[in-house]
Amino acid sequence: MYDLQGETVRFDVPHNRLLLLDQTRLPGETVVLALHGLEEMVEAIRALRVRGAPAIGVAAAVGLAVRANESEETDVPAFCEAVRRDAAVLRAARPTAVNLAWALGEMERVLSAGAKRVPDLQRKLTERALELHAADVEICRKIGENGLPLLKNCRAVLTHCNAGRLAAVRYGTALAPVYAAKERGQRLAVYADETRPLLQGARLTAYELHEAGVPVTVLCDNAAAYVLSKGLVQAVLVGADRIAANGDTANKVGTGGLAVLARHYGVPFYVCAPRSTFDFACPCGEGIPIEQRDAREVGSLWFREPLLPEGVGVLNPAFDVTKADLITAFVTEKGVFAPDELSALR
Amino acid sequence: MYDLQGETVRFDVPHNRLLLLDQTRLPGETVVLALHGLEEMVEAIRALRVRGAPAIGVAAAVGLAVRANESEETDVPAFCEAVRRDAAVLRAARPTAVNLAWALGEMERVLSAGAKRVPDLQRKLTERALELHAADVEICRKIGENGLPLLKNCRAVLTHCNAGRLAAVRYGTALAPVYAAKERGQRLAVYADETRPLLQGARLTAYELHEAGVPVTVLCDNAAAYVLSKGLVQAVLVGADRIAANGDTANKVGTGGLAVLARHYGVPFYVCAPRSTFDFACPCGEGIPIEQRDAREVGSLWFREPLLPEGVGVLNPAFDVTKADLITAFVTEKGVFAPDELSALR
Repeated sequence: MYDLQGETVRFDVPHNRLLLLDQTRLPGETVVLALHGLEEMVEAIRALRVRGAPAIGVAAAVGLAVRANESEETDVPAFCEAVRRDAAVLRAARPTAVNLAWALGEMERVLSAGAKRVPDLQRKLTERALELHAADVEICRKIGENGLPLLKNCRAVLTHCNAGRLAAVRYGTALAPVYAAKERGQRLAVYADETRPLLQGARLTAYELHEAGVPVTVLCDNAAAYVLSKGLVQAVLVGADRIAANGDTANKVGTGGLAVLARHYGVPFYVCAPRSTFDFACPCGEGIPIEQRDAREVGSLWFREPLLPEGVGVLNPAFDVTKADLITAFVTEKGVFAPDELSALR
Repeated sequence: MYDLQGETVRFDVPHNRLLLLDQTRLPGETVVLALHGLEEMVEAIRALRVRGAPAIGVAAAVGLAVRANESEETDVPAFCEAVRRDAAVLRAARPTAVNLAWALGEMERVLSAGAKRVPDLQRKLTERALELHAADVEICRKIGENGLPLLKNCRAVLTHCNAGRLAAVRYGTALAPVYAAKERGQRLAVYADETRPLLQGARLTAYELHEAGVPVTVLCDNAAAYVLSKGLVQAVLVGADRIAANGDTANKVGTGGLAVLARHYGVPFYVCAPRSTFDFACPCGEGIPIEQRDAREVGSLWFREPLLPEGVGVLNPAFDVTKADLITAFVTEKGVFAPDELSALR
């Protein structure tokens, strides 16, 4: 078994391979994948073996470095072109989360900065991927610290999908403040939406919080209004896949509705995300591409038994857009910002 | 195979048995149950083999008549006491839907009216159960007719759980106007929330609408806000399990949140239910008992594979309460009423 050292994504530099915890096998099995090939990397991203906007970004950067290191090209322009081709393929694996494109853009900047020889570029790409990996850990730690004061008077929070340590390299985004509270001895319970269709809340959030000793209660997404109306939680914490310039936020489908409910019941709604999730080139939510996924995710129970009669239509948007005016604040590594303060992050 | 003649519940008088379509086996298998015993009737109600407030009410009335007919008691007071004992056991099978208690109350009125001999009472109980069965069909047909004008300019509606023909004897409540529209040649599509945890939307609503030739698209409950925000539906239609005097409405968990979303997106929200679902003895939603069901409904996929790590908490309220002020109108067999007009139904 490959050793991930408690992380979800690692760069095994000596063997030049991308190591990933296969999240489709959790919570039943702990399987680590060691990837070299472009196709298997794309498959791992598409099939959600690695998921969570920050984790996808780091995995793609490491994956691109692995590919670049395997190149036998000696001509610098040809090498750069081949790496850019691979980056384009990886970038197209999933359309909504901007961290994927952002991390690959950071890698391509290394190419643009140039070097005399291919081995120099390979070394620099490896270093940059390792930097992005290390930065993710540090950024999530800071999101946790910056979010902590917001939870001072909370006994419990509600979260949707998984934006915990499994969604990043370590710590996570939405759950980073929860882990920070735990480290400081604050008793804080979590209610976790199970998050159909792929049940990231039940399979991943419940799993990682339970492992960490944080009390967690799972509910069907349908019961979120019940939890909010009964005053069982004092805040909602979610992650994000892409945040437009005006603060409109794409995240796992259901987030937008949850924000409407939180507003209705007077519960603050926080989006926790690194700076790399903000897409200032995108003015508002309408500009964010929403991935429509396979009908079988809805029409079967976890791909096993068919649930629907043949011929029944299925709508399966993977994300929705939460309007900025429903978001109390954004918690980032650079501080906490109201929707109208986001220009400070540009 | 027993013949249900297109209904979900029937009273097989010659063989003195309650016939039920086992809804836990749909859509894969069509299994009809023939019940005599009290315990198996209670199990069928608890396990949701028969479900939907009107169908449960009729099933309990028929079941009570079956039990009464099997009695070998010749003393009238002793007979009445035994039937009342059986009624109490049936009434306790599920706490939220008031139709169960209402239908059993109607049966008990036959006992209170009295008779000289036990066979007379048995005959009257059988007649009353058959009347309640026939009335349900007629009431649902009228709900459909009364709801139809509200859908005049609709291209599609959203519904939650199953309040279709499978939830009543025939026609259903929330879907009755859809079937009425279909009969009159109006093109009307239905978006159906899959409705976790027991997937009545995916398994039952999709099945019955598809069988009836009504175009149906299933979505995860999480995607309801997406559907509403994109203007894909022009109305929301739901059933009810109990409606308090002020119009607060208990229905399948998720209904309350859906009403908040419908209000936010400016889509009318209609509750379709027979008069027997109104509980004027209950002043408001806080008085409605909410059934909490087994954690395994959430923690496993349709009772097969465990989904959650051991020790993770689960919250599984089967119902929630929709506040009256979020309901555009109630569609009943006696007409359409705004929440402040309900006293007309007393």
